[in-house]
Amino acid sequence: MGKTRKPKKPDHLKQVLAALEAGDTAQVRGILADLHPADIARILEGLPPEPRATVWAQVDIQHMGEVLLELPEAVRGDLVKLMDGAALAAAARALDTDDIADLIPELSDDVIAEILFALDKQDRQRLDSVLSYAEDTAGGLMNVDAITVRENITLEVVLRYLRRREELPEHTNQLFVVDRDDRVVGILSVAKLLTSDAWMRVSQVMEREVIKFPVLTPDKEVAAAFERYNLISAPVVDENNHLLGRITVDDVVDVMREQAERERLDRAGLREAEDMFASVWQTVRNRWTWVAINLVTAIIASRVIGAFEDSIEKLVALASLMPIVAGIGGNTGNQTTTMIVRALALGQLSETSMRALFAKEIRVSLVNGLVWGGLLGIMAYVLYHNISLGVVMTAAMTLNLMLAASAGVLIPLTRLKLGRDPARGSSVLITAITDSGGFFIFLGLATLFLV
Amino acid sequence: MGKTRKPKKPDHLKQVLAALEAGDTAQVRGILADLHPADIARILEGLPPEPRATVWAQVDIQHMGEVLLELPEAVRGDLVKLMDGAALAAAARALDTDDIADLIPELSDDVIAEILFALDKQDRQRLDSVLSYAEDTAGGLMNVDAITVRENITLEVVLRYLRRREELPEHTNQLFVVDRDDRVVGILSVAKLLTSDAWMRVSQVMEREVIKFPVLTPDKEVAAAFERYNLISAPVVDENNHLLGRITVDDVVDVMREQAERERLDRAGLREAEDMFASVWQTVRNRWTWVAINLVTAIIASRVIGAFEDSIEKLVALASLMPIVAGIGGNTGNQTTTMIVRALALGQLSETSMRALFAKEIRVSLVNGLVWGGLLGIMAYVLYHNISLGVVMTAAMTLNLMLAASAGVLIPLTRLKLGRDPARGSSVLITAITDSGGFFIFLGLATLFLV
Repeated sequence: MGKTRKPKKPDHLKQVLAALEAGDTAQVRGILADLHPADIARILEGLPPEPRATVWAQVDIQHMGEVLLELPEAVRGDLVKLMDGAALAAAARALDTDDIADLIPELSDDVIAEILFALDKQDRQRLDSVLSYAEDTAGGLMNVDAITVRENITLEVVLRYLRRREELPEHTNQLFVVDRDDRVVGILSVAKLLTSDAWMRVSQVMEREVIKFPVLTPDKEVAAAFERYNLISAPVVDENNHLLGRITVDDVVDVMREQAERERLDRAGLREAEDMFASVWQTVRNRWTWVAINLVTAIIASRVIGAFEDSIEKLVALASLMPIVAGIGGNTGNQTTTMIVRALALGQLSETSMRALFAKEIRVSLVNGLVWGGLLGIMAYVLYHNISLGVVMTAAMTLNLMLAASAGVLIPLTRLKLGRDPARGSSVLITAITDSGGFFIFLGLATLFLV
Repeated sequence: MGKTRKPKKPDHLKQVLAALEAGDTAQVRGILADLHPADIARILEGLPPEPRATVWAQVDIQHMGEVLLELPEAVRGDLVKLMDGAALAAAARALDTDDIADLIPELSDDVIAEILFALDKQDRQRLDSVLSYAEDTAGGLMNVDAITVRENITLEVVLRYLRRREELPEHTNQLFVVDRDDRVVGILSVAKLLTSDAWMRVSQVMEREVIKFPVLTPDKEVAAAFERYNLISAPVVDENNHLLGRITVDDVVDVMREQAERERLDRAGLREAEDMFASVWQTVRNRWTWVAINLVTAIIASRVIGAFEDSIEKLVALASLMPIVAGIGGNTGNQTTTMIVRALALGQLSETSMRALFAKEIRVSLVNGLVWGGLLGIMAYVLYHNISLGVVMTAAMTLNLMLAASAGVLIPLTRLKLGRDPARGSSVLITAITDSGGFFIFLGLATLFLV
């Protein structure tokens, strides 16, 4: 019976804490020895600085590189500081070149020199070629361990060649067929290799339609293509179709996870993933930009209200009703933007559909404004026995929801036209517009018709 | 030279629109014939209902099933309505059983019967077994096309067996080694198979440590494990370790994308992904719950203000300053929650760290409150020449940010204790608390000390 390595082991953090309390570092080492680097990373992240350093010292040096890769940058940086150059070089040597490239930004020049010195010539050239591309491109994602074959040999020869290698690079589901100038002419899937007759030639069984990535393709596009076409690996080529390397699905899965995480952090206005045990000062620094931006928009909204203080003094009910108008505007505006950003991401917004969509969003906001604004108007009347106040409430809600719909459509489209990410920051901007706009519309109408 | 199938073709929607305008359906058919089902889905989604139906009629029936799978449910439902039972059955037959299972919820009983009738006995049993598990479990994700081998045979025999099959299931990177009761005892990676000597026995080269999923494992956990352990495929087993099927990384990538999409929709309070060309009425229905919830919380906040109308009448500056206190509270509370939810998702919150974290968040909010609140206090003094008003402003900001930090920590933890998703709905709740709380604290302090 095979031993089962369960995908989830929620109590290892507890076990490690217990062993630390007992001062039994040998036991810590024993626990860690059985764990996957990803699990060790989770434990380290869950520990305060001091025990974290103790546990880190118990990690097998062969696994340190992989563990570092699994950690968010804030924690990774702290652990790297605990290691000397020789240890770092040893940890790096156990990694693939594309993974070493991911660690490089954290390392000092001395350590980098030490690592380069420790690598053999071929690996050094590989690392060099990966490092020459930005981290968020196909070139930055690729590994340089692709197996290539020529199209005129038989499968028998390919099989013998593979057997002589004794090991295949991880996630090798296809071999790349190249011509004598290293240009990609096709791919030979391992499945074909296993199921075809051995006397056939590569050219007879290879696939000539190859999904390949120019080396500067943004990583988001690579991820989208892997998802659409269910890829396991794909070649990376230069402008002349020369094979430079290959991207594997595990790296793409990491890109997807990082994208989702980045999105979550952006939404809350956090600069980077925080180390749970970071100091108060580090935490404040990570969060202050967003607080400052929101403070500025809040002060603007506050000054809009300030301009109508005379009206509020005369009819104080305005003060308690105005936040409703502003708040609901922000909510519905963000609903609109979410749908627009989605359509943009899927490349579905043509000129025609854009106009249709805009018209629809305005109509939706009109319906919402009349229905919800109508209800609020009735509520205002019931509370303050003032019919005109109710009418102003309904009118203001309707107008602000229409403003919200317009902003919700136009802000992401404008950002896109300016070459920016349509999603980032849209939410702050919409809320700013619907807050200030909502206060202005409601208090303005009230000033005109009520006081 | 191999033909290049580029990963991104942004102009196909335009080409299709042009062909439609010219009334040339043959050309539409020609464009679609070269495209991947995922790309056809993107085009269909980008078209209004009428041309969408026209284009749908030009899709090859062999691809219809895969195209349907790539569409969001709203659009999929509309297209299914355009097809008769025979066409649906034909489209389904071209799919894997796990993919047919994903389509079933959209189909009428008649069509399901027709599909079942069209399948052979083995496929019918497979479909049955996949359908008996919830869609969001390992069982719902799995396919039943795993290749199994016994441990006492030689690799030579395995190779001959594979060659006789002529085709391997997609993403076959490993074969499952089972005993005579179909219990999983190990895995034989294709890489090992290709690089080991053919006279060796499976038992000599197989991996005995198998990452496998009990059939009821939630799909989120499956996705996390695939990401952590860089898996391409993994076996699904019942409680007695019998092999039921296998999960492949392409399905996991879909789960990850759906999770990210679900999160985005939840955040904006959208029930499901909208068809861009849905009617106003359908759109309003998709969005109304969220608007209603926010309306209720806004009305509560409004009533808190209403209770202090006397104070506002006496000191109207309160009306323009109060939204700042409330707003910044919501922003910082959501920052705190984002970090807590992240730590919870990674399983890093022990009892000790929870207390430390809570203490840190309170300290961060204290610093923020004094710094930003101090600035606002000065602003209030400059605007209204009232020192006490400035002091109240600073105090209210500090207290509301501390309330925000507490809510930001406690709400996700409480939701988790109640067995709910800690992320969902937290944002609405925190904003509700910091809005009403902010108004109450600021207006309450003002009433006590200023008027």
